[in-house]
Amino acid sequence: MAFETLLLFGATGDLARRMLLPSLYALHADGLVAAHLRIVGTARSDLDDGAYRDFARAALEEFLPEERKDAGALASFLERLSYQPLDASTPEGFPALADKVGDTSKGMAIFLSTAPFLFEPTIAGLKSAGLAGDNVRIGLEKPLGTDLASSREINDAVAAAFPEERTFRIDHYLGKETVQNLLALRFANMMFEPLWNANGIDHVQITVSETVGLEGRVGFYDGAGALRDMVQNHMLQLLALVAMEPPASFDATAVRDEKVKVLRSLRRIDADSAATHSVTGQYGAGASKGEAVPGYADELGKPSDTETFVAIKAHVDNWRWHGVPFYLRTGKRLPTRQSEIFIQFKNIPHSIFAKKGGKLQANKMIIRLQPEENIRLQVMAKEPGLDRGGIVLREVPLDLSLTHAFAGARRRIAYERLLLDLIEGDPTLFVRRDEVEAQWDWIDAIRAGWAANGMTPKTYGAGSWGPSAAIALTERDGVTWHD
Amino acid sequence: MAFETLLLFGATGDLARRMLLPSLYALHADGLVAAHLRIVGTARSDLDDGAYRDFARAALEEFLPEERKDAGALASFLERLSYQPLDASTPEGFPALADKVGDTSKGMAIFLSTAPFLFEPTIAGLKSAGLAGDNVRIGLEKPLGTDLASSREINDAVAAAFPEERTFRIDHYLGKETVQNLLALRFANMMFEPLWNANGIDHVQITVSETVGLEGRVGFYDGAGALRDMVQNHMLQLLALVAMEPPASFDATAVRDEKVKVLRSLRRIDADSAATHSVTGQYGAGASKGEAVPGYADELGKPSDTETFVAIKAHVDNWRWHGVPFYLRTGKRLPTRQSEIFIQFKNIPHSIFAKKGGKLQANKMIIRLQPEENIRLQVMAKEPGLDRGGIVLREVPLDLSLTHAFAGARRRIAYERLLLDLIEGDPTLFVRRDEVEAQWDWIDAIRAGWAANGMTPKTYGAGSWGPSAAIALTERDGVTWHD
Repeated sequence: MAFETLLLFGATGDLARRMLLPSLYALHADGLVAAHLRIVGTARSDLDDGAYRDFARAALEEFLPEERKDAGALASFLERLSYQPLDASTPEGFPALADKVGDTSKGMAIFLSTAPFLFEPTIAGLKSAGLAGDNVRIGLEKPLGTDLASSREINDAVAAAFPEERTFRIDHYLGKETVQNLLALRFANMMFEPLWNANGIDHVQITVSETVGLEGRVGFYDGAGALRDMVQNHMLQLLALVAMEPPASFDATAVRDEKVKVLRSLRRIDADSAATHSVTGQYGAGASKGEAVPGYADELGKPSDTETFVAIKAHVDNWRWHGVPFYLRTGKRLPTRQSEIFIQFKNIPHSIFAKKGGKLQANKMIIRLQPEENIRLQVMAKEPGLDRGGIVLREVPLDLSLTHAFAGARRRIAYERLLLDLIEGDPTLFVRRDEVEAQWDWIDAIRAGWAANGMTPKTYGAGSWGPSAAIALTERDGVTWHD
Repeated sequence: MAFETLLLFGATGDLARRMLLPSLYALHADGLVAAHLRIVGTARSDLDDGAYRDFARAALEEFLPEERKDAGALASFLERLSYQPLDASTPEGFPALADKVGDTSKGMAIFLSTAPFLFEPTIAGLKSAGLAGDNVRIGLEKPLGTDLASSREINDAVAAAFPEERTFRIDHYLGKETVQNLLALRFANMMFEPLWNANGIDHVQITVSETVGLEGRVGFYDGAGALRDMVQNHMLQLLALVAMEPPASFDATAVRDEKVKVLRSLRRIDADSAATHSVTGQYGAGASKGEAVPGYADELGKPSDTETFVAIKAHVDNWRWHGVPFYLRTGKRLPTRQSEIFIQFKNIPHSIFAKKGGKLQANKMIIRLQPEENIRLQVMAKEPGLDRGGIVLREVPLDLSLTHAFAGARRRIAYERLLLDLIEGDPTLFVRRDEVEAQWDWIDAIRAGWAANGMTPKTYGAGSWGPSAAIALTERDGVTWHD
């Protein structure tokens, strides 16, 4: 059921400006939200409705693509907006927020993006002010804790006000078209399933690389690090989608049941294996996009043990994936910004072309999430010609370019999808509590392993692909990272 | 070993003008044949060397693509040519031919394209004149007989002069790039083999359609018909390549061993099954390319029982193909000119998207041989969007366009490949005696079945896809021809 109020916490924050307001505007402009949907923003800033509309207008002017800007749509969108200042650290402001929100009998969706220490008071305030009734569902933006214990604490606090079926944990990677298309490819085609296991797949690589450094995230990032910022959520979700068994149906329970099975099947990396199965790094000074950039500690202004890079060799201990490594790698100040899943199929068991000189490479599938979204299959074909010097076999790309195959379909921000699902109440693309906790459980063991071994991040030059130990991690297995 | 003389029978015929001379010129222009290769043409026409060179020049002017014409290359190519008139029906002219050919100690390849009744005297004449020695191999163009008995007779006659390893039976479909790429796709990739059997494939369709009618082929075609003109050779070869087990190596013995196994595994269509597993037709008056055209009997000038169309439901009785129909169809005066292999994969066993409205089509592979050559894989992908009305799954083509993937590679005539293989002695892409005889064995049973059931061709309108019974042949199985 589509709800008629959207309450936006962190309404003046960076995420709101860059993603949430542009997404909501796009849904509005395309007529995808009900005419009577009201959007109430809240944050500490002392704004009134008019000032918040000005704020929103400025954000949309800055972040909307030119071709999406439409004066009429913009004006009618801003009319949906109102604003209530709130200090969420104390319960006092919540009754006024409840007044501003008014009637929630037709349902309210809350989008909560806030600093970790405000999580519990916010939930308590919402409940005390009667803003957590049966008609209210809540969407939670990361970070949701820093380890299993704190995650449980947050989840318990949320559960005291919102039952699990009304709790929508956001991982914006799940809103990406390519991620959803990975499921369509796997489960709407006969082609892939026979290969999609240890008999057909040699290994999987998941890379999320950034070119940026610390940027403005000093307060949050230091102490958190790459493992908790990227691997614990986005990358483990991608891994789960690649590895999961076919669900019985594309619905929230069936899909999440299969994902959590994968997450619980991750082989524990602990004190015994942390040194051989993980590598951490922290960027030093170097070059990014042709410009000299300082190292992490310089940016931070003090020495730090926070890792800005992590590479992991993971295994899923079940029948399907026996012996198939999943290599994960993420970091800041790497050479390119890209998110991709790279599936390396096994070599064919025997080449009939070997005696004629035909050289073969194993098939690959590359699912690119960033910067562009596309899916590519690399197959071998014979080069046309008379083959006098022997057969020439060449790797040829078969591209499923979502932009080409579906020309005319507008590319949407992942948040458009997720906000609409939140308003309408479809939890399929949101993360369930048991998934988050399985993720933390696995991540905590790795961190404990680092501590037990006294592992600290190795320095890598900004603009490189991380410490050389990350290269060695795969090369020991005869595998090369796909750059 | 590359031979230094090529003796071309039928040197003034249509095949020579359209295909052989342009192919030999292309090999010459690209420096692919030895500088000292001499080409001796022979036919009934009373020409001398100069007149034959004029004939060849005219043919090349007419049939070479403009961009291939090069005055220098043309002049040097013509210098390779000489000519000897010959009445092959009597042995008398062969000694003169042998004189013209001269020294064959450095090897001679013979290309024999001739009327069936001249086959045996030609072979006998070659042998008697000493033109069938150890250094000579012979390429044979179809038709090689009209049934198993006459094919054996021809094969025996050839075998009396040339052992099997020096006998190269031409099926020009095997020289096509796409046909060779079908083998590369199947056996150089991990992707396809797990599906390439009765578990993964629902059925196969092979269509060779022509828009032309009888044209000038009155003498040959009437009495032969579509079954013997197209199915017995080209279409059964395509079927064998699709269906064969992986050979141990891409060499002549291994590949042909696997093909002949398929041909011998074809389930017999005989008096009991001819009526349910085959349909014949003969075109009546109709329209082709927007113009009214007469029926076959009118073109022929008399009534005829020759089929100009045949559709067959075949089965390969082995483990791999149990229960998978191979539908074959060929005919004249059909709506388009196209040769293609259409592989219909099975439906996925269960759609997880069904409840969300996602409609699925099974995967397909289309291997197009004519008019253009390409290979297309049809997969399902999710249409980008917010899926408010349910998930929209769309069939999306993954194209292996040989022209695009290998830009710059010149498209070659199939005969270029085959003539060069003949000169150089690689028999992989030629048809072995046991294959031809297995093909005839199967074809003869069908013809006997027609006779036993008194089946005569049903009339179809020129410009249609054959008699309605051909539609019914597949529709009874819930299968629709891919037009």
